[in-house]
Amino acid sequence: MPAPTPAARKTALVISAHSADFVWRAGGAIALHQRLGYEVTVVCLSYGERGESAKLWKQDSMTLDKVKAARRVEAENAAAALKLHDIRFFDLGDYPLDLGREAKDRMVDVIREVQPNWMMSHSRWDPYNTDHMNTTQFALETRMMAQAWGHNPGQKVLAAPQLYLFEPHQTEQMDWKPNVFLDITEVWDQKWAAIQCMQGQEHLWHFYENVAENRANHFRRNSGGQAGGRAAKYAEGFQAIFPQTVDELA
Amino acid sequence: MPAPTPAARKTALVISAHSADFVWRAGGAIALHQRLGYEVTVVCLSYGERGESAKLWKQDSMTLDKVKAARRVEAENAAAALKLHDIRFFDLGDYPLDLGREAKDRMVDVIREVQPNWMMSHSRWDPYNTDHMNTTQFALETRMMAQAWGHNPGQKVLAAPQLYLFEPHQTEQMDWKPNVFLDITEVWDQKWAAIQCMQGQEHLWHFYENVAENRANHFRRNSGGQAGGRAAKYAEGFQAIFPQTVDELA
Amino acid sequence: MPAPTPAARKTALVISAHSADFVWRAGGAIALHQRLGYEVTVVCLSYGERGESAKLWKQDSMTLDKVKAARRVEAENAAAALKLHDIRFFDLGDYPLDLGREAKDRMVDVIREVQPNWMMSHSRWDPYNTDHMNTTQFALETRMMAQAWGHNPGQKVLAAPQLYLFEPHQTEQMDWKPNVFLDITEVWDQKWAAIQCMQGQEHLWHFYENVAENRANHFRRNSGGQAGGRAAKYAEGFQAIFPQTVDELA
Amino acid sequence: MPAPTPAARKTALVISAHSADFVWRAGGAIALHQRLGYEVTVVCLSYGERGESAKLWKQDSMTLDKVKAARRVEAENAAAALKLHDIRFFDLGDYPLDLGREAKDRMVDVIREVQPNWMMSHSRWDPYNTDHMNTTQFALETRMMAQAWGHNPGQKVLAAPQLYLFEPHQTEQMDWKPNVFLDITEVWDQKWAAIQCMQGQEHLWHFYENVAENRANHFRRNSGGQAGGRAAKYAEGFQAIFPQTVDELA
Amino acid sequence: MPAPTPAARKTALVISAHSADFVWRAGGAIALHQRLGYEVTVVCLSYGERGESAKLWKQDSMTLDKVKAARRVEAENAAAALKLHDIRFFDLGDYPLDLGREAKDRMVDVIREVQPNWMMSHSRWDPYNTDHMNTTQFALETRMMAQAWGHNPGQKVLAAPQLYLFEPHQTEQMDWKPNVFLDITEVWDQKWAAIQCMQGQEHLWHFYENVAENRANHFRRNSGGQAGGRAAKYAEGFQAIFPQTVDELA
Amino acid sequence: MPAPTPAARKTALVISAHSADFVWRAGGAIALHQRLGYEVTVVCLSYGERGESAKLWKQDSMTLDKVKAARRVEAENAAAALKLHDIRFFDLGDYPLDLGREAKDRMVDVIREVQPNWMMSHSRWDPYNTDHMNTTQFALETRMMAQAWGHNPGQKVLAAPQLYLFEPHQTEQMDWKPNVFLDITEVWDQKWAAIQCMQGQEHLWHFYENVAENRANHFRRNSGGQAGGRAAKYAEGFQAIFPQTVDELA
Repeated sequence: MPAPTPAARKTALVISAHSADFVWRAGGAIALHQRLGYEVTVVCLSYGERGESAKLWKQDSMTLDKVKAARRVEAENAAAALKLHDIRFFDLGDYPLDLGREAKDRMVDVIREVQPNWMMSHSRWDPYNTDHMNTTQFALETRMMAQAWGHNPGQKVLAAPQLYLFEPHQTEQMDWKPNVFLDITEVWDQKWAAIQCMQGQEHLWHFYENVAENRANHFRRNSGGQAGGRAAKYAEGFQAIFPQTVDELA
Repeated sequence: MPAPTPAARKTALVISAHSADFVWRAGGAIALHQRLGYEVTVVCLSYGERGESAKLWKQDSMTLDKVKAARRVEAENAAAALKLHDIRFFDLGDYPLDLGREAKDRMVDVIREVQPNWMMSHSRWDPYNTDHMNTTQFALETRMMAQAWGHNPGQKVLAAPQLYLFEPHQTEQMDWKPNVFLDITEVWDQKWAAIQCMQGQEHLWHFYENVAENRANHFRRNSGGQAGGRAAKYAEGFQAIFPQTVDELA
Repeated sequence: MPAPTPAARKTALVISAHSADFVWRAGGAIALHQRLGYEVTVVCLSYGERGESAKLWKQDSMTLDKVKAARRVEAENAAAALKLHDIRFFDLGDYPLDLGREAKDRMVDVIREVQPNWMMSHSRWDPYNTDHMNTTQFALETRMMAQAWGHNPGQKVLAAPQLYLFEPHQTEQMDWKPNVFLDITEVWDQKWAAIQCMQGQEHLWHFYENVAENRANHFRRNSGGQAGGRAAKYAEGFQAIFPQTVDELA
Repeated sequence: MPAPTPAARKTALVISAHSADFVWRAGGAIALHQRLGYEVTVVCLSYGERGESAKLWKQDSMTLDKVKAARRVEAENAAAALKLHDIRFFDLGDYPLDLGREAKDRMVDVIREVQPNWMMSHSRWDPYNTDHMNTTQFALETRMMAQAWGHNPGQKVLAAPQLYLFEPHQTEQMDWKPNVFLDITEVWDQKWAAIQCMQGQEHLWHFYENVAENRANHFRRNSGGQAGGRAAKYAEGFQAIFPQTVDELA
Repeated sequence: MPAPTPAARKTALVISAHSADFVWRAGGAIALHQRLGYEVTVVCLSYGERGESAKLWKQDSMTLDKVKAARRVEAENAAAALKLHDIRFFDLGDYPLDLGREAKDRMVDVIREVQPNWMMSHSRWDPYNTDHMNTTQFALETRMMAQAWGHNPGQKVLAAPQLYLFEPHQTEQMDWKPNVFLDITEVWDQKWAAIQCMQGQEHLWHFYENVAENRANHFRRNSGGQAGGRAAKYAEGFQAIFPQTVDELA
Repeated sequence: MPAPTPAARKTALVISAHSADFVWRAGGAIALHQRLGYEVTVVCLSYGERGESAKLWKQDSMTLDKVKAARRVEAENAAAALKLHDIRFFDLGDYPLDLGREAKDRMVDVIREVQPNWMMSHSRWDPYNTDHMNTTQFALETRMMAQAWGHNPGQKVLAAPQLYLFEPHQTEQMDWKPNVFLDITEVWDQKWAAIQCMQGQEHLWHFYENVAENRANHFRRNSGGQAGGRAAKYAEGFQAIFPQTVDELA
């Protein structure tokens, strides 16, 4: 893969309900696109401090601030492993997230600053975790606001980037169906390193290793199978919400 | 658009229930891909002689053979306008199609001969026209047979081409939802010429002109809208059945 | 309700997989439309002799012919109670139905003879009873054939009658959702009499009485509730497959 | 069409997220029902001042108030062209709409004042424009509140008017499926005039002309096709949320 | 049915938008599980004082407080008939419910106190009654909060109880599909008594008697039909949101 | 797990399109239920000789009979590893299967002989492999025939066993959603041994190991997560087509 020319510089934005979601679900896409010359920004709406830090809370003398600090370090380490361009923490509280007007305006500012070529977030439905589906609604709403010429007139408005939905924990229960598979073999080492930064959720490491291997199987099957399929070893699946506009079918 | 190099030679296969379907629904994709260096083959399972030739049957002394001959001429003229590489007529009868084992084996032979980079057919459901949805089932079944190493061993087996579902007449009634839009502006003249070959269905010409214009609006909206969208004037929409396998999200 | 004028004479066609289906699911619609001046024809594809006659088969010395004869009498009695214009028995065998080309051509002949203002059949999906969903597919296919100008040229082709799907036994399991409710209060006595003709399935009588009462509740709720709803006491629900074309919203 | 008698006086209510939505999506239904003797009221929740006024914002020295004023004039002109009975502007802000309790109570007051025979609003889902789908949720919620006997006791409660979902910009992406088509041929001139009032969105004029022509094709196809279909030239499609309650199938 | 041993003591929690919902939709399940040794708690988010008390509001000199008091008495009487362990009234107002952060925290406290083996609430979608679908969203959100180790650390967190959706008034319109049927024959007398406590909604008594009878028919059909089905006379249907985890298929 | 008493003896029936499907998708359920005292029968409709034996066909001098023989040995070895009660080979040909009336009658004979407590087959939809979805249709049709009192009168008719759909290769593409997870930890060694019998498809071994591990994660999540979930290490997921009929919610 040749080094990208300056002209090819692109950006992407991932909106993550809690501070670890982007690692399991999109770590490969992030690392790969950084390597392809993208500047990827991740916004963590919360640290998952209340709902996704069971291991920490089982320790003595734990406090909300300590949990947040620990989760932030993990996320920053993972970001470094993925060579992530930028990570921001909105600290909106979790279980549930507080996604009011102030949070929306702040998110729009980031979207406009980043001007992403594509965006990424959670599934449309998640009965286990309403933070996830509320984040997707929030992503759609703020994407729309960022497209409005009358929102902070004078700022550069957003075009129409794709919103990819990354893979939830139990795909079928979340009504999620992938229509894009991405070969992440060459950046797997980075994703695996990032996953290992998630000290508080070690029980999920192997799960997402398996997911990556099996999505690679799907990649191979969909790219030709035994009659010419790409020999991907690790892959990620995504559901694109918006249709593509293309010049050639492939 | 530069002339394709020999190495870029590719093929595509469109399975059309009746002899005019490929014109309305995929004429732009066909002409464009021919120009891109593809060799596109269309298989018309029937002439639509019984069910889609009302205008001819209203003439005096009409016979089934005369209808078939007239429909064949129209389809061949349209194929010429689209600079189609090859068109074949299976003459299986229509309303309903006879899609038995013999037809399946014959179809598999063509699929293997063509070795298409992508295939195209009708929607999954069509309460107005069961020939259409039966053709899609037939396309899936024969695609699968063509992938079987034990079907006529020694022949080259099929890889895993995408099956695009082209646009039906009333999209929502057919549970059809496009996830790909193709800009056909540069070949619109050809599609329009092909459409005009359909003398027996002049009442549909303007309808599909409108469809092409409006899908171009969708193309513009999905490729950036007023903030950078491609100025497509004519487009076609397709629903890809199988997920993509990509190296970069776009 | 005034007596219909001769000019208002209309026809309808109900395609019933087994000989009792039309009673439970559409008896009210049939009786009401006969009273409204329609000539309603029912085609029973089978007698339900193998699969829906358990009570008869438990008798000694029962034979297939005896079951068919008994079921035919029940259906004819029910038809008389509903003042049905015409009932035909295709005797295609049941569990499973044999719906080959010959059956299709025969069905098309009836459709063209009747020229129905509307048609009616089963739900799209029925995991308990594949005869039911195959009948719906058969109804759509033969409706399409009857519209073909090249099918027996010279006969009057069919226009575009609505296909209503009548209520299956377990609506939610069959993916059936009503979009039309019909007040059958004034013909309930007839439907109840027809139901009682079904001596072999007495265990279903009360079930469909309840259905009729509860659909009337839905009728009332949807026609205004406590603030003006029609005081229907018995109703039937239907799912119209095709959209309406209207001059005024109501 | 005869002049309606006084007794036939009816009302309708259209809830439009932004001030132009009612024109593109329901202008024909509005003009036609005015002609049929209805008094139609449109509530514009916002002017679309931030999100749907790109052309205005590109002018020098533009302000929010100027945009609102310009959009209001356009909407009032369109209302006049459609001979609309009444139009109200809630000015709730757009992108996103502020649909809190105060807005709900205000909306309920209008619903009860109008006592509509039918209501109309947006699609259930719209990933491009969350204002649209939030408006539909708002319409359902306020319709329910208006039916409550304990909401402002003493006021006349609402019965059970249909809620029609008018056509969104990209039907399939919004999970919208029409089940009613309305022939608007005789009021097309008015709708076309109203469309031309939308000076800021001239790029959409032809799009919705095409939509109207093609829905007319669907009208013709569903009302009989070449074997008797109504020769509609312009039509609109709607999705009725609630089932119908009828006395006769048609 | 043997008396449960102390070790078998279990709990369940039903979240009801208005104070009568639990009776019509889950009265049998409640009475049966009380008899099976469960302690069932019902939380009524409102009395349905504004929207579901039409009969009361038609009386002279009625006030909101009087309606609430009357509705509370009815609900308490029904609870007694069902031998309900506990009933709580959140009094959040209805049409619409006010489901803000305070209500959520209060609900989580109850969930944690009860530690239910299973939970129960409304359908995912209800276009007639947005209180119902908002309650389901609220149930999912508070279930998630109750599972968070960081929510009131030190409290016992919730495990993963099933959320059953009980039967709405018009199942198909609410996208509700049962996957569990419960035989309530032995407690029917109690449910019937509880139903009769609902003096203000006598028009619904018979409707839900019919529902119970017909769901029993579905119980019989799904448990073996004429070849061995359980002879249930009354049943209730539920849709389980989450998959089961089992040791043996049955 | 105690040894089952003779009275607890039960049976199950798995209908597998090709001779390896039952191993990947249901091997754990089979081994576990054998251990629970069930007698499980597997019917392989074909050997997958044409379509699922690529590795064999790449060998020199391969013939259809040799492929079938090799595939049969693999399946029999897998059956032995699972301690399967009985395996039958219908040899109907594959890619496509020939599922005519004769095959149906033969299948009904087996169903009636086995009298299964539950049945198992493929997903409802599979665009990659129409043999799979046609097998499901075939399973539903023959289950229905086996319930018919008039089919071979005198034989014992089938009751109403559940039909479980086992996990397809790409769940989301097949519209498959599990509602039951089964803990197969204690029989994993057997399933793993059976998998290794599939010499011709070694590329799938690890894939299904991963599936089993990840479904165990889902098992843990759905049975209580970190707050009490069962520590399953391997699991299988199934979609039950028919609702359950129960005496107690769990």
